[in-house]
Amino acid sequence: MSLENFFKPKSIAVIGASRHKGKIGYTIFKNLLTRYGKKVYPINPKAKSILGVKCYPSVLSIKERIDLAIIAVPAKIVPLVLEECGKKGIKNVVIITAGFSEVGNEAGEEKLIKIANKYDIRFIGPNTLGILDNYSNLDCIFVPEEKMKRPKKGNISFISQSGALAVALLDQVAKEGYGISKFISYGNATQTDESDLIEFLAKDKNTKVIAWYVEGIKNAKKLMKILKKVKKPTIAIKGGKTEEGKKAALSHTGSLAGSYEIYKGFFKQFGIIEVENLRELFLAAKALEYYGKNNGKRIGIITNGGGFGILTTDKVSTLKLKMAEFSEKTKKSLEKKLGYMINIRNPLDLLGDATTDRYKIALDTLMKDKNVDMIIMVLISQLPTLEKLKSIFEGIKIRKPVLLVSDCENKEIKQIEKKYRIPCFSYPEDAVIAAKAIA
Amino acid sequence: MSLENFFKPKSIAVIGASRHKGKIGYTIFKNLLTRYGKKVYPINPKAKSILGVKCYPSVLSIKERIDLAIIAVPAKIVPLVLEECGKKGIKNVVIITAGFSEVGNEAGEEKLIKIANKYDIRFIGPNTLGILDNYSNLDCIFVPEEKMKRPKKGNISFISQSGALAVALLDQVAKEGYGISKFISYGNATQTDESDLIEFLAKDKNTKVIAWYVEGIKNAKKLMKILKKVKKPTIAIKGGKTEEGKKAALSHTGSLAGSYEIYKGFFKQFGIIEVENLRELFLAAKALEYYGKNNGKRIGIITNGGGFGILTTDKVSTLKLKMAEFSEKTKKSLEKKLGYMINIRNPLDLLGDATTDRYKIALDTLMKDKNVDMIIMVLISQLPTLEKLKSIFEGIKIRKPVLLVSDCENKEIKQIEKKYRIPCFSYPEDAVIAAKAIA
Repeated sequence: MSLENFFKPKSIAVIGASRHKGKIGYTIFKNLLTRYGKKVYPINPKAKSILGVKCYPSVLSIKERIDLAIIAVPAKIVPLVLEECGKKGIKNVVIITAGFSEVGNEAGEEKLIKIANKYDIRFIGPNTLGILDNYSNLDCIFVPEEKMKRPKKGNISFISQSGALAVALLDQVAKEGYGISKFISYGNATQTDESDLIEFLAKDKNTKVIAWYVEGIKNAKKLMKILKKVKKPTIAIKGGKTEEGKKAALSHTGSLAGSYEIYKGFFKQFGIIEVENLRELFLAAKALEYYGKNNGKRIGIITNGGGFGILTTDKVSTLKLKMAEFSEKTKKSLEKKLGYMINIRNPLDLLGDATTDRYKIALDTLMKDKNVDMIIMVLISQLPTLEKLKSIFEGIKIRKPVLLVSDCENKEIKQIEKKYRIPCFSYPEDAVIAAKAIA
Repeated sequence: MSLENFFKPKSIAVIGASRHKGKIGYTIFKNLLTRYGKKVYPINPKAKSILGVKCYPSVLSIKERIDLAIIAVPAKIVPLVLEECGKKGIKNVVIITAGFSEVGNEAGEEKLIKIANKYDIRFIGPNTLGILDNYSNLDCIFVPEEKMKRPKKGNISFISQSGALAVALLDQVAKEGYGISKFISYGNATQTDESDLIEFLAKDKNTKVIAWYVEGIKNAKKLMKILKKVKKPTIAIKGGKTEEGKKAALSHTGSLAGSYEIYKGFFKQFGIIEVENLRELFLAAKALEYYGKNNGKRIGIITNGGGFGILTTDKVSTLKLKMAEFSEKTKKSLEKKLGYMINIRNPLDLLGDATTDRYKIALDTLMKDKNVDMIIMVLISQLPTLEKLKSIFEGIKIRKPVLLVSDCENKEIKQIEKKYRIPCFSYPEDAVIAAKAIA
């Protein structure tokens, strides 16, 4: 059974919907009601209506067909309402409720699996923050929008074993302007685990890049089988790498984090790009969203700030990328056009008084040089001689990845990012980390 | 002669002031005129007045005393106008103009030194972006405010060998909300070099932390002598660390970057905190501004997100800080107050439904524990159970550094930062990098 049905149900029941603002069951119901645009039923035996919508005591009291149920009732009652979902013929269920194996209640979780098997139910959770799809607008994350900003539509899908981490991270990436396709907090991974999710996202047409926060893997054999077939770039950040971190992970999700060396080998074997920290996760994801993998590692640098050129070069060396050796043709052409002003070398320092014309010549030439796999273009847009930044890209065919280091808040830079599909980074080192991910 | 006079002159002449918007000489004059609040004279033989202020053909035509001259005329004319400054008795000069030793014009630079010696002039530059003092409001940076945002007032002073790098960086740190005391772009360091500036800033009462972008050191012996006396925390980022980066530095400022190992040893010997990249420069500076150096390296972590706790723990281990071992008293006290809900260990995971009361207990207890040198407090403010964040800190005496990992844009977090002097970081790894700098 595909997971597709979780993301575009024609009707949804929110079991544990609440009338009280601030309650999880209120936030989930309100989000779905106001944003999803399809039929949403509140289930609550104590309420007559919620936000003007007729309330039902149980899913069994609804006559119409229900495609998806969101469960947000106390842990003790979850088996009961899951059973009712089964009887009602609901095949997809998200169990938000916590209080299962993560606090030692393995028995409760066994019950859920039994019921699900009996009725052929597919469920995500328990102990999840919820799921989000920016294409269908399905959003059952239990944190209200005034507390957690939602990221805009994009092509990165993010799956997370930790819920709270995802709350903070989604809010932050929303503020930084990254675009998300689907987000799935998979909690205890009781029935639907990382393997199922990666397999599903690998086929999802709105997902170009899979980003993953992982502490421990549920079923390594299953995952290996699936990863062999996954072609999409997948980035992982591993929680519990050090001895101290591992102990913390054990007490968090009960994950036996295992030796980090084993994970490292595992990631390498299956082409999973491992990053060092949460910022890098999204830097890498952004570059991969634009350019995919396997772009070669010979970097050409163009800059109007010598210092930025040097720091970029240092980072290229540190991350074991290569500084491109310009072709003879490139050298001659640049020498002829710019040699009276600047030194022709890599990094190509166009100097602090560089104009957009100078940039255009440099970009065009390196674009045609087969010795250059990727271009990192530092564009200190604040310098006085730079005007009409967009003109740099006009009429130039982007045949290879260009990573821009600039003031990403600048209006013109934002337009360049959109129109010419060139990703912008705020710091030179960030662009090199991004280049490393796509190399 | 102290450098103090550069930052609070009673009168300034802008030599090369221009009537034309977009010109460097226009920006400098306008900034000084509108923001500095003391007498500013435009010097330009072709103009009668600029922005309504009477213009003079030369400093020699001015009767009043001039304390500081800013020179922004073509390189060829600089010796001439510097001579005039000497005759006028001006003792402090900032030479913005480029086109000296950095392009092979060593002879021109020799001339400047000769003239300066003759008249006992102290000059900064040539080839500088300008200087800025947020306390006196002196700002002769040649980039207009609409292109480069100025950072707010604070206690970090930043000196940079590279000008363009500083433009991009100042703009970025302004957007990220860091506070700056003085900024000095020292360009070719012809007469006033890094040693002079560090010596001066070490005595400046508005400077608590010195941040430094360096490619090559002008005079190592002089610097060593000064650094022996400097007590203030100094952070450096070195451009040209790798072989490729060194070559680039040579072509940029003509700096013989030398072996990085030598620099590394040098930084270590004199207690200069070296950082890996530009973001870290200001993360470290922020922590040092709040707490200074030598705070011990045993970290206690409090969190409401298990994943964030794990990533913080991993980073603490990676950066060779220590996870604190809570005292018996702490363990007993926490066990009694919170043990029925949570595991008492470090990281102390207060769980996703943590309230401000739970945080208050945890913070107060760790604050009193002598085994804990610093506290990293992850506060995922987006989670629904957290209300009235400020109450966590009410009545608690901050006896040791607390580094907050939270949504730094949140209004209440901003108030906490200000009222209780607790610095906020957006990512857990950032807080650990900051902790490392003050450890």
